[in-house]
Amino acid sequence: MTIINKQIVLASRPEGAPREENFRLVETPLRVIKDGEFLVRNLYISLDAGFRNWMNEGSGDNVLPAMEIDAAVMGLTLAQVTESRRSGFKPGDLLMARLAWEEYTICDGSDFMARLANKLPFPLSYYLGILGDTGMSAYFGLTDIGKPQPGETVLVSAAGGAVGSVVGQIAKLKGARTVGIAGSDEKCRRLVDELGYDQAINRRGAEDLGIAIARACPDGIDVYFDSIGGSMLEAALAHLAEGARIILCGAITSYGATEAVPGPSNLFELVTKQATMKGFMCHFKDQRYGEAREQLTEWLQSGELKSVEYMLEGIENTARAFCHMFEGKNFGKTVIKVFDD
Amino acid sequence: MTIINKQIVLASRPEGAPREENFRLVETPLRVIKDGEFLVRNLYISLDAGFRNWMNEGSGDNVLPAMEIDAAVMGLTLAQVTESRRSGFKPGDLLMARLAWEEYTICDGSDFMARLANKLPFPLSYYLGILGDTGMSAYFGLTDIGKPQPGETVLVSAAGGAVGSVVGQIAKLKGARTVGIAGSDEKCRRLVDELGYDQAINRRGAEDLGIAIARACPDGIDVYFDSIGGSMLEAALAHLAEGARIILCGAITSYGATEAVPGPSNLFELVTKQATMKGFMCHFKDQRYGEAREQLTEWLQSGELKSVEYMLEGIENTARAFCHMFEGKNFGKTVIKVFDD
Repeated sequence: MTIINKQIVLASRPEGAPREENFRLVETPLRVIKDGEFLVRNLYISLDAGFRNWMNEGSGDNVLPAMEIDAAVMGLTLAQVTESRRSGFKPGDLLMARLAWEEYTICDGSDFMARLANKLPFPLSYYLGILGDTGMSAYFGLTDIGKPQPGETVLVSAAGGAVGSVVGQIAKLKGARTVGIAGSDEKCRRLVDELGYDQAINRRGAEDLGIAIARACPDGIDVYFDSIGGSMLEAALAHLAEGARIILCGAITSYGATEAVPGPSNLFELVTKQATMKGFMCHFKDQRYGEAREQLTEWLQSGELKSVEYMLEGIENTARAFCHMFEGKNFGKTVIKVFDD
Repeated sequence: MTIINKQIVLASRPEGAPREENFRLVETPLRVIKDGEFLVRNLYISLDAGFRNWMNEGSGDNVLPAMEIDAAVMGLTLAQVTESRRSGFKPGDLLMARLAWEEYTICDGSDFMARLANKLPFPLSYYLGILGDTGMSAYFGLTDIGKPQPGETVLVSAAGGAVGSVVGQIAKLKGARTVGIAGSDEKCRRLVDELGYDQAINRRGAEDLGIAIARACPDGIDVYFDSIGGSMLEAALAHLAEGARIILCGAITSYGATEAVPGPSNLFELVTKQATMKGFMCHFKDQRYGEAREQLTEWLQSGELKSVEYMLEGIENTARAFCHMFEGKNFGKTVIKVFDD
């Protein structure tokens, strides 16, 4: 019986924030696998705003190639082998893979992937979120670069986002005072009630962002975890404490921009405050994922750390969920459940 | 006999780059010193573009207060005690002090200062330049933050400036390949011939700066020593090597700006290149000046390091020389010789 594969392809390159019409659902019959290949079902798809970067023409870089029009959108999935003609891969095996927004993928083993054990203590979606790149970004960004000390103030942008929701909790576990920025009063309430933030700032609130930051961080910002860039980075720079550390983990402002977004006009603050700004992407640390997973697992099991997910079901909702991130509709990690595990 | 003190006062706050008419020479009779005070002659005045910062209204910060209209311009001088009614200070003593653009100053010991020995191996002006804050900025910025490794590429903006002229030489001594940026063909020639730069780029040359940088740094920039900010920082960010370090030592672009200068629009390069940007001011390192002076002295004595100065004579030339820095007329450290030592 031929399997019909549902895929989400890039219909057109987004201008600015992605919109649903930039994507199209196509149905294609799957061919039979050949020797050396195996077939996987993508059980879960991880959605990350950063992938917006590679939807632009000529956006290929040292990390990923540019995506192609009419090809299935590149992403990160949690996949299960269903059929195999390749040694080392057998039906039931669980893999994390750089695959596409589609139900099924024929693999030849050349895709970047990591194996997962078949018995796992947490729901599978956690391995794309808090125990996947999201958790790794939060963990390594905060502990390697931010290094928050007890009593220090940690400010987190997009605090209700996939990474921010983990950063705030880890900072708290390290004894820091945590201040989160989010886009609605509802999210701010959840930051404090569900994620233990000491204080939350609604960036769309009545108060000027700079004034709100100054009020929430009276001793200055020791660590700023930035996933936003642009004017929010500028506002944070204006309130740094001496010796501050800024983690650049993304730049949502520029992902959605149709033209170059000017950087902060006050980088000189880095000079007078002797501050450090360091960029990073979690996959550069993949040698050390084990160490991070061990610590995060311990905190999850003790209940000190919580996973928060924004989960939609069905491959046909993938583009919608991706766009929701740019509209600020998600709280926590955005993930698509494609099949029941 | 009353001494007439010649002072350069701030006549008006500069808009953009300072101009000579923003300053005025005034002559004031010096009063007699009181108990607990001592009088110094400012033998040399160090001129640093960074002081432009504190000429703006309300520009006081954790480093210095804002300068006042009609008051002598704040600066850094190499002073000699000529008369003392304060124990611990006797005529002939040499001091480095946060004093003003004037021939004489009455001190009460509260000014930030360091003592110099009375027998010194180098010309006194060196202690404001290559062995003063300038040399300290170059040394600590490059060795603590930049950490150039043999064979790496070090790009220096304002390479013919006070700090840049030292940075390039130290980077070379550390085994790096050095590329300097300056504002004229004549300066570029001097960078290579006098300071040993491997290559020099005229930022006012015919070629686009980004293209010139890409050509001069084919393996990317490992260390960028930035004193400029603005579009030059943006051009450097576009050509970073993996793991690059950027030292922010100043931001001449913003000193002379009438409105906020947008920052680089491509800070995201820090993320994909896992690069670090760190700001610093040398005086935060003053506990370690001894270590740096020892190393620099050794290199100066062996002839491996050269001091390059742009020296004008007479207090009446102070404002002119300061403005020259913003016009790019200096090569090396700008210093005023007020009196013969």
